[in-house]
Amino acid sequence: MKREEFHEMLKQRVLFLDGAYGTEFFKRGYKVDLIELLNVKNPQAVAQLQKEYVQAGADILLTNTFSANRAKLKAHGYEELFEKINVEAVKIAKSVANGRLVFGDISSTGSFVKPLGEMDFDEAYFIFKEQAQLLIESGVDGIIIETMSDLKELKAAILAVRDVSKDIPLIASMTFDANGKSVTGTSVEIFSTLMNDLDVDVASINCTLEPKDMLNVFIQLAKYCNKYLCVEPNAGKPILRGNVLEYKTTPDEFAIYMRDFVEFGANIVGGCCGTGPKHIKSMVEYIGNQKPKSKEPSKRQFVSSRTVMKPVEDFLIIGERINASGKKKLQVQIQQKDFSTIVQLAQEQEKEGCAVIDVNLGIEKLLEKDHFKQVIIELDRVSALPLSLDIQNLEFLETAAKEYVGRPMINSALAREDHLIERLKILKRYGGILIVLTMEKDIPKTPEERFKLALKAVEIIKKEGVDLDRIFFDPLVLPVGAGNDYRVTVKTIELLNSAGLKTCIGLSNLSFGMPEREKVNAAFLALCMEAGLKAAILNSKETTTMNIIEGMLLLKGKELAKTKVEFEDPL
Amino acid sequence: MKREEFHEMLKQRVLFLDGAYGTEFFKRGYKVDLIELLNVKNPQAVAQLQKEYVQAGADILLTNTFSANRAKLKAHGYEELFEKINVEAVKIAKSVANGRLVFGDISSTGSFVKPLGEMDFDEAYFIFKEQAQLLIESGVDGIIIETMSDLKELKAAILAVRDVSKDIPLIASMTFDANGKSVTGTSVEIFSTLMNDLDVDVASINCTLEPKDMLNVFIQLAKYCNKYLCVEPNAGKPILRGNVLEYKTTPDEFAIYMRDFVEFGANIVGGCCGTGPKHIKSMVEYIGNQKPKSKEPSKRQFVSSRTVMKPVEDFLIIGERINASGKKKLQVQIQQKDFSTIVQLAQEQEKEGCAVIDVNLGIEKLLEKDHFKQVIIELDRVSALPLSLDIQNLEFLETAAKEYVGRPMINSALAREDHLIERLKILKRYGGILIVLTMEKDIPKTPEERFKLALKAVEIIKKEGVDLDRIFFDPLVLPVGAGNDYRVTVKTIELLNSAGLKTCIGLSNLSFGMPEREKVNAAFLALCMEAGLKAAILNSKETTTMNIIEGMLLLKGKELAKTKVEFEDPL
Ligand SMILES: [Zn+2]
Ligand SMILES: [Zn+2]
Ligand SMILES: [Zn+2]
Repeated sequence: MKREEFHEMLKQRVLFLDGAYGTEFFKRGYKVDLIELLNVKNPQAVAQLQKEYVQAGADILLTNTFSANRAKLKAHGYEELFEKINVEAVKIAKSVANGRLVFGDISSTGSFVKPLGEMDFDEAYFIFKEQAQLLIESGVDGIIIETMSDLKELKAAILAVRDVSKDIPLIASMTFDANGKSVTGTSVEIFSTLMNDLDVDVASINCTLEPKDMLNVFIQLAKYCNKYLCVEPNAGKPILRGNVLEYKTTPDEFAIYMRDFVEFGANIVGGCCGTGPKHIKSMVEYIGNQKPKSKEPSKRQFVSSRTVMKPVEDFLIIGERINASGKKKLQVQIQQKDFSTIVQLAQEQEKEGCAVIDVNLGIEKLLEKDHFKQVIIELDRVSALPLSLDIQNLEFLETAAKEYVGRPMINSALAREDHLIERLKILKRYGGILIVLTMEKDIPKTPEERFKLALKAVEIIKKEGVDLDRIFFDPLVLPVGAGNDYRVTVKTIELLNSAGLKTCIGLSNLSFGMPEREKVNAAFLALCMEAGLKAAILNSKETTTMNIIEGMLLLKGKELAKTKVEFEDPL
Repeated sequence: MKREEFHEMLKQRVLFLDGAYGTEFFKRGYKVDLIELLNVKNPQAVAQLQKEYVQAGADILLTNTFSANRAKLKAHGYEELFEKINVEAVKIAKSVANGRLVFGDISSTGSFVKPLGEMDFDEAYFIFKEQAQLLIESGVDGIIIETMSDLKELKAAILAVRDVSKDIPLIASMTFDANGKSVTGTSVEIFSTLMNDLDVDVASINCTLEPKDMLNVFIQLAKYCNKYLCVEPNAGKPILRGNVLEYKTTPDEFAIYMRDFVEFGANIVGGCCGTGPKHIKSMVEYIGNQKPKSKEPSKRQFVSSRTVMKPVEDFLIIGERINASGKKKLQVQIQQKDFSTIVQLAQEQEKEGCAVIDVNLGIEKLLEKDHFKQVIIELDRVSALPLSLDIQNLEFLETAAKEYVGRPMINSALAREDHLIERLKILKRYGGILIVLTMEKDIPKTPEERFKLALKAVEIIKKEGVDLDRIFFDPLVLPVGAGNDYRVTVKTIELLNSAGLKTCIGLSNLSFGMPEREKVNAAFLALCMEAGLKAAILNSKETTTMNIIEGMLLLKGKELAKTKVEFEDPL
């Protein structure tokens, strides 16, 4: 099926997903190493359960392939069954679907991607790609990637599915605790806002929580995510009775709670661990034929790392000090893949109050892709702030963007069409926010010329289908000591701001070669902020500059954005 | 003679003053306690010397009354001769003048005025007034106050002469060392700029220096003073031979040097100690009939105390912390005339980088004139920075302005005609710079209304004959935390600035009741300075604010003004 048809269905009414496979087979007494083995050893059992889900009213059946990627099968010694298990799963589901949709089910490889584990991003990507290829070739109507606890692994899976098919409907589902955090430290908000950027049809949360604990997490998802939404809670917290895990939420209790998710905007509802056909049946009866609630997800933009999310409105402070240009010692370290100084600089700048850390390795001609991959992994390892990927070489930029966990800034594109489109492609594929310089080759002298180039870029960005909210324009700051008029930048900011475009400057260039740089930078920044500036790459060691940011925000009746988005109690 | 006639003469050609009396009588062997006794004991001797000066070509004869004030005569036991000596002196001079002008000569009382000595300002004033009255009643054509080393005493003398006659031509002359400093620490520039304000016709330097050492000092006078200029050097450095002081500069040497003073703008040239009729004759021959050189004295404005002068252009930092409003402990101290805390606050603020110290004693209803007199004297005693006299009560303001040594700021007048005219009168009588609030009774809401009030005030100021360069307008800052829009002040500054009017704000009011006041104040100040603000009363403990001032000036390609005006070598 085409994605457009699926979207039409989602607009018509709330759809029902099926319930659990693993816990249900276990309850029914099937004793196998991996429940996916049933696809080949006891296809009747699988068909029977799926038939019951169809009878219960499910609109979407998942294939019994949750753990059927090559890595997991291999870990259990069933690698040779990889193709058969997946192909049979689709066959079984389709044989009982009776018009219902069949979605190929994909989950974790069982190994964490670097830096959490030893698996390379590309390795995970190929594992997912191989399974997705098989499922799609076998005729599934869509793909669901579910119960993912690592945003990076999820990203690999999403990219893999999309590289197999641009047209297949795709649900991407992560699992969170009651505080809205995954075990890898990613919040539901970080997940939500990255899903906005990536090419998925439905963002979803599933497993771990029973319905009442999952509702608040879902509300956050609905608040920040502008995709269609899916939810699959467990049937309560599992209780160990003897050697059997029992899930105590009854079908009626489950169904009552599930109505709340619909109220808060769910487009697809289903069950995860502990749910069976009765839960689904009850849920379908309680919810019935409902038009999905209209949602108004927040228009706020955020940058994020794996664990930290920062709003970009009001003012975004981007630390400039990871910049190897002209720093011989740091350059040597980087060449040797010693990123200790960079990690230290990132941590210092976080303490100083930065929201984002710009990473500019300089000396790009002396480096390889692996340098960029490693620096991203090292900064992720220490839970660094969101990054601004300040990389000239397109291939290196893509390497970094791929390896990155969260929603980065991409620094930067020229307003020249070819250069801009190349970077917009990276933005669309990997997510994030792009800084566009108001110049093509040379820097225009006047504010009006710079503004005109920005407007030209706006047309290209719109044509490429990227939301302008994801773009900062850099009005360009030149050294005032070299005779440049600082007012040109201020005026350019005013022009861009009154056209509703966000601006970001590289502050320190202003005072290049001057005495008392901190004082000059800080004074200028106040003028820029009054003109509407929304972000600056700056030296956060400059206390005066940092004070001025806070002072300007207070003057305007705003406060410096808090580190985290508060988890709100909606009741 | 009327002042206008005298001015006409000064425009026509360079005038010649006579030479010394004291050293010349001494050389001629007259042995008296005070040479002024000759007026009654040997009037022929006086007449003879003055006749020689007339023959030498002097246009102006001075009466032999240099030490003939009541205080000095009393000190030598000749108080009863006070009237006779002065009246006779005028008679003698007029008897030989033969059409030349006779100027009554006045000099120091011989005692320093407080805080340098024990004499009250008013006491000095009355001594000068008494002598001036006598000389003027006796028919002199003008008055010269000369060889003054204390600017405060000179001010008392000037006010005294003017209170006797608004119409009498007046030359005010101070004496400086080769570095342009009086023994009381006042620079020739401080003297020059105060003379611009006070109602004198000619500003002059005399005595102490021989011509070649005096030239640089005179050049500074010519650079900063916009009045007619007079100069009377000594005939060289005195050498003690036996018990006789000899002055070695020959008449020709003297005359050659005196031409230089004419080149640099002197309107009147004469001789002081060691000069005799031959020096004057030679000088008259060398210089001859010359039109005075046209001068272009600096338009720069300065505030000053006795010893410190600060330019008001670029940016003037006025310390706010001497303000007793709401400070119970300080109020009690002030009532008890204990000014130790105030002195300490003045010194702290100087260290922090202020150029001017605002003095607001608050609780004016509980104070008397003497409190204001004493605080000015105490701050003068410690060589404080220039003051901003922040005083509501008109009588108290006048007391402070009178006692003040230098060119203060007067803070402040309303734009209401009666209130403004009262303060302009003080400004005209005592000198200084006035802050005019852009309000009458209530604070206007809009920038345009505030600007309109400023323009109304401009008309009044012009009508009162005060140079607009001596006025700051306060665009008024209101607490932003109380919902006031800070942009109203910024816009008012822009309007005033584009009309060529200088602006000064009270910064701290902005952040009243807010957290992080320093940050808010500093940010706002940057915006105001960009709009053209030229001065602010502020808390100089706020490092961020002080940094921003320097940063804004550097941004605009300026530097924070140096403490002192450099003594330039013109050659
Ligand atoms: Zn589950
Ligand atoms: Zn002398
Ligand atoms: Zn003299």
